[in-house]
Amino acid sequence: MGHCFTVLAVDRHSKARYGVLTTPHGSIETPVFMPVGTQGTVKAVAPDRLKALGVRIFLCNAYHLHLRPGEELIREAGGLHRFISWDGALLTDSGGFQVFSLAQLVRVDDEGVSFRSHLDGSLHRFTPEGAIRIQEALGADILMTLDECVGFPASLERERKAAERTIRWARRCREVFSGNGQLLFGIIQGGMTKDLRQFCAKKIVEIGFDGYAIGGLSVGEPKPLMYEMIDAVEPLLPQDKPRYLMGVGNPESIIEAVLRGVDMFDCVLPTRNARNACLFTSRGRVNIDKQEFARDFRPPDPECTCYTCQNFSRAYLRHLFKAGEILAAELATIHNLAFMVKLMADVRRALQEGYFSEFAREFLSLYRSKGVM
Amino acid sequence: MGHCFTVLAVDRHSKARYGVLTTPHGSIETPVFMPVGTQGTVKAVAPDRLKALGVRIFLCNAYHLHLRPGEELIREAGGLHRFISWDGALLTDSGGFQVFSLAQLVRVDDEGVSFRSHLDGSLHRFTPEGAIRIQEALGADILMTLDECVGFPASLERERKAAERTIRWARRCREVFSGNGQLLFGIIQGGMTKDLRQFCAKKIVEIGFDGYAIGGLSVGEPKPLMYEMIDAVEPLLPQDKPRYLMGVGNPESIIEAVLRGVDMFDCVLPTRNARNACLFTSRGRVNIDKQEFARDFRPPDPECTCYTCQNFSRAYLRHLFKAGEILAAELATIHNLAFMVKLMADVRRALQEGYFSEFAREFLSLYRSKGVM
Repeated sequence: MGHCFTVLAVDRHSKARYGVLTTPHGSIETPVFMPVGTQGTVKAVAPDRLKALGVRIFLCNAYHLHLRPGEELIREAGGLHRFISWDGALLTDSGGFQVFSLAQLVRVDDEGVSFRSHLDGSLHRFTPEGAIRIQEALGADILMTLDECVGFPASLERERKAAERTIRWARRCREVFSGNGQLLFGIIQGGMTKDLRQFCAKKIVEIGFDGYAIGGLSVGEPKPLMYEMIDAVEPLLPQDKPRYLMGVGNPESIIEAVLRGVDMFDCVLPTRNARNACLFTSRGRVNIDKQEFARDFRPPDPECTCYTCQNFSRAYLRHLFKAGEILAAELATIHNLAFMVKLMADVRRALQEGYFSEFAREFLSLYRSKGVM
Repeated sequence: MGHCFTVLAVDRHSKARYGVLTTPHGSIETPVFMPVGTQGTVKAVAPDRLKALGVRIFLCNAYHLHLRPGEELIREAGGLHRFISWDGALLTDSGGFQVFSLAQLVRVDDEGVSFRSHLDGSLHRFTPEGAIRIQEALGADILMTLDECVGFPASLERERKAAERTIRWARRCREVFSGNGQLLFGIIQGGMTKDLRQFCAKKIVEIGFDGYAIGGLSVGEPKPLMYEMIDAVEPLLPQDKPRYLMGVGNPESIIEAVLRGVDMFDCVLPTRNARNACLFTSRGRVNIDKQEFARDFRPPDPECTCYTCQNFSRAYLRHLFKAGEILAAELATIHNLAFMVKLMADVRRALQEGYFSEFAREFLSLYRSKGVM
């Protein structure tokens, strides 16, 4: 594993860090939020807009792209970046989470996992080696190991078995991974059990990866429990590698996790909420299709400089949602992604300039106030 | 009625003209195709993209906007341009066509038309005066008179009654229209009967409008019959006013109508087809979601310079449609509108440079060949 990450500033009062992650498609300042483009597109937003918004990396899903259109087709197209016309960085999720949540599970054994496609019921098999092969064919900048996820709550026995299998699978992923400039991140499981999380973290770090992901959180557990799990594994992770908290995207949890030393995040929340008329603003979430916005001609978020807020009113957004117009999804997604991009830029600046603890306190207080704007 | 239109070039071999239409929101070169933005948005494309595509005018619908969100709300917002963030020109259809096609018709009498909303069944009434009042509240650049449409086929008696009522309604629209820089176009009806079309054209021209629309065509009749109706009324229309063929948007018919002296067009076809994966190309229409394009990594139309064709392959567009991604609608709509914009720019250049008849012949021959690209 090469050198791909540099910590440039550390908060005096917390574990928060500012860093730079180097990928074959550009350098990414961290902490960073990665939007989700499951099927090779961040839903409702074209790549030129994403770029203009300041997005430098997003996530595609190996499970979805394997089923449709298939990694071989994408390889023929010149790889995922070319296929989807994105010259920034890409991370591909291994598919572990989707197999265990979306697919109809047929069998999990030590060798791999058999499942039926959520699209057409066809039978498929993922192995650790296969997951790497798929992701190498896709050609993402950051690949993820295949892991076994358990939901919440789960028995200790179930958590233990999944964590142990995740470790064995991570080793196999690491062995077949050919490198070639791509980065490989290992995933830490262990359910909601501190000892198990720590055991898993140690083993995954022993194998050695370019970065370390904390998986299997944000699956329905109380937030304090999630923070406890992060606190448990963080001291075991190397300082000079990026840490990625998978599936977390709400602004509060991101700030809490940055305070605990996490560098990377992904979640469908900002984009999915947008399509459901739920906007992130500096004063909390707003359901823009509510009656109260019918004649509200102010911008969705007066503090926001995104295309949506600079050009359209709450009343117009509400109209678009009520009328079922596709533009509603695009404008709301642009805004929510702009919000996330700005949030993370603010976080990084606060870290660079040494006032992150104050920033975090103020942000959480304002965001939680959810005042009517 | 003021002076808003100048013919700058006339074809030697046909009735085709090149002109400029001046509106409160900019000058528009004709012949022009106007995309349709029924509910205050050209479906799936944000206004900044429309502008970048070269669109200078599009159409909104008074019927739809009256029902939702209502013209008073839009007036409060500062008018339609401001509400939808479009600083180019806008034309509003009076709602006549929609009342007779979408709504549940309750009663038509000389005074006006009562109907139930297609949205919630609520009872509404449009009168000629009301249609102008609504459109003045919306604040479009070009307003249309309220007309009575008959479908195809219709009895001569039905066609005659509707034509006569359309004339009486046009007069009342003209009387209450306050001007204020806005333009008012009269609509010619008369079904598929030449004499009736000519009678109606004479009467509408007598009343005097800023432009003349030919309505009630492209409603299912054979194309030669449509062209016959255009040929019948064209000589009766003043040379120094724009002529607008309503609801026509397929490239072949546009060329045929330009040859017959028409300056303006609108249709949902390019945008609706796009959302159904049907792309306009220089070699005819292509259903981009077909299996044959699964591994076709060429641009949708190799001759096109639009964002879609410059950045994405047929294979990716097919993938987006198959995956049900919103981006499919946007990328396809961008392409079809770029195709229409370029078609009309080519038409105008051919008229300016004096080779339109050859251009029309070649275009129709190539377009009709529908060769596999």
